[in-house]
Amino acid sequence: MEIVLAKSAGFCFGVKRAVNMAFQAAEEDGNICSLGPLIHSPQLVERLEAEGISVVNDIHAVTDESVIVRSHGITRQEEEYLHEHRLKVVDATCPFVKKAQKYAGMLGEQGYSVVIVGEKEHPEVQGIVSYVQNAPVHVVADVESAARLPLGKKVGLVAQTTQAYENFSSIALKLLERSKELRIFNTICDATSVRQNEAHELAAAVDVMLVIGGYNSANTNRLARICREIQPHTHHIETAEEISDSWFNNVARVGITAGASTPEWIIREVVGKLEKIEK
Amino acid sequence: MEIVLAKSAGFCFGVKRAVNMAFQAAEEDGNICSLGPLIHSPQLVERLEAEGISVVNDIHAVTDESVIVRSHGITRQEEEYLHEHRLKVVDATCPFVKKAQKYAGMLGEQGYSVVIVGEKEHPEVQGIVSYVQNAPVHVVADVESAARLPLGKKVGLVAQTTQAYENFSSIALKLLERSKELRIFNTICDATSVRQNEAHELAAAVDVMLVIGGYNSANTNRLARICREIQPHTHHIETAEEISDSWFNNVARVGITAGASTPEWIIREVVGKLEKIEK
Repeated sequence: MEIVLAKSAGFCFGVKRAVNMAFQAAEEDGNICSLGPLIHSPQLVERLEAEGISVVNDIHAVTDESVIVRSHGITRQEEEYLHEHRLKVVDATCPFVKKAQKYAGMLGEQGYSVVIVGEKEHPEVQGIVSYVQNAPVHVVADVESAARLPLGKKVGLVAQTTQAYENFSSIALKLLERSKELRIFNTICDATSVRQNEAHELAAAVDVMLVIGGYNSANTNRLARICREIQPHTHHIETAEEISDSWFNNVARVGITAGASTPEWIIREVVGKLEKIEK
Repeated sequence: MEIVLAKSAGFCFGVKRAVNMAFQAAEEDGNICSLGPLIHSPQLVERLEAEGISVVNDIHAVTDESVIVRSHGITRQEEEYLHEHRLKVVDATCPFVKKAQKYAGMLGEQGYSVVIVGEKEHPEVQGIVSYVQNAPVHVVADVESAARLPLGKKVGLVAQTTQAYENFSSIALKLLERSKELRIFNTICDATSVRQNEAHELAAAVDVMLVIGGYNSANTNRLARICREIQPHTHHIETAEEISDSWFNNVARVGITAGASTPEWIIREVVGKLEKIEK
C-alpha cells in the first residue's frame, strides 16, 4: 500500500516556526512563558507546559521570565513594554504578519488612510493596527463597511494574513471607486487555500483518504468535507488509535492530510500505524 | 420659455483651457503653430488659422515660431527637443494628462512595472509612456492583455484620462491577482460620464431637448441617443440655423447640451436663437 502525505498537511510555515522556536527556547532557558496560548491545540499546549513553557495572558504578569511572542504577533505598545522592562524576547511572529505590520506602518507614515481587511478583535489585526501612527486606520470585514468608511484621497490597503482573497479584492475594488490613489499590499498568506486545493487533488488520486485534526476544528472539518465530495472513502480522525485495519482491504493508495492546528507528531503516528498495516 | 443649458455642455475643462490659451497666444504673437490640430473640430481649426495659428504635424518642421502643445500633451523627447532648440512653448497640456505623466514617471523611478490602461497609438498615451524611464512600461486596452503581461512584484497603474472606469477597474483587479504590491493612480477624468449623466437628468426635466454637435461625432450621437430614450422630443443639431420654431409650441422648458468638440460660440448662437423665439 502506497502512503501519500500531502505536503501542506498540518501547521503552516509560521506556526511550525513558532513551535520550533518555543521548544528550542525551552531547552536553552527553563524560565519561559508565552503571551497567550502558542497555538489552538490543547495537546501541544500540554507538551509545551511539560517542557516548562507556561501561558501568560496579561503582559503585566510577566516578571523575570523570557517571553515567547506567538505567530500572530503583538502590538507596538506591548513590544515597547517588553523592551522597556528589559525582558528577554523570543519573537516568533510569523514573517508574513511582520510584513503586514511593516506595510501598515509605512503607509501611515506616508500619509495614507490605512485600511486593514480582517476581524477587528483578532490579535493579529490588533497588532497590525497598532503599527499605524498619526494616520487614520480602519479595520473592515466586508465591502459594505468599506463603502461607509471616511477616507482621504490616498488610501493604503493591507490584509490579515488568513483572509479570503475574494473578500480582499472586492474591498479593494470598492476603495478604488472612492479614492484617487490606492496602494495595495496583498499580505494574504495562501497556506489555507493551498492546503485545501492539495487535499482536493490528492483525494481524487487515492483509494482512501485520511484527514487528521480536532473534531471541533473548523478548518479540519472543511478539509474533510472537500475530500469526501471527491472520495467517499474519507475518514476524519483525531489520532492514530482510531484507525481500523478494515478500511484498507484491497487498497493500493492512501492519502493523508491534516488541519492547520494538527501537530506533526500526530501525523507521524498515523503514518507509522499505516506502515505497520502495510506489512 | 425657460432655457436650461447643461453645465457640462461642450468642451471639457482641458480642451476649453487649450483653446483659450491658443487664442490668447495668437493675440500676443502672430508667428505661432500648434503641434497637430488643436481639437477635432474643423470649424474651430479654421478660426484658429484665421487668427494666424497654423498646424504643424512634424516637430522638425518648426523653425522660429512659438509652439502650442495641445491638451493631449507631447512626449518627453519632444519636450526636450523644443527646449534644446529654444523654441517658445505655450504648454496647453491638460492638467489631468500632466498628472498621469507625472505619476507614471514617478512609478518608474520607484521601481514599479508601469501599466497604462489606454490605446497604444493615442498621442496622449504615447506621451505618458515616454515619461517612464529605466523601468518596464506596458500599455493595455483590456483585461485579456493585462493577464498576459510580464510583471514584477511591484506594479504601478495609471490610465489614459478618457478611459471608461469599468475597464480600468477590471484591469486593476487582474493585476492585483498577479502582484504583491499594486499602486493605482486613478487618472481618469470623468468629464464624459458627467456630461452624459447630466444630459440624462436634464432630458427628463424638460419638454424639448437640443443636442448640439457634429453628425459624425461619436460622443454627440451617444448624447442624443441617451436623451431620446428619456425625452422623445430630442433634436440633434449642428448649428442654430437648423432650429425650427414649430418645435416649441406650448413648450415651457427647453434643455440644451453639446458634445465634447462643440465650440462655445455655436452653443451661444443656439441659445441666442431660442431667446428670440421666446419673445
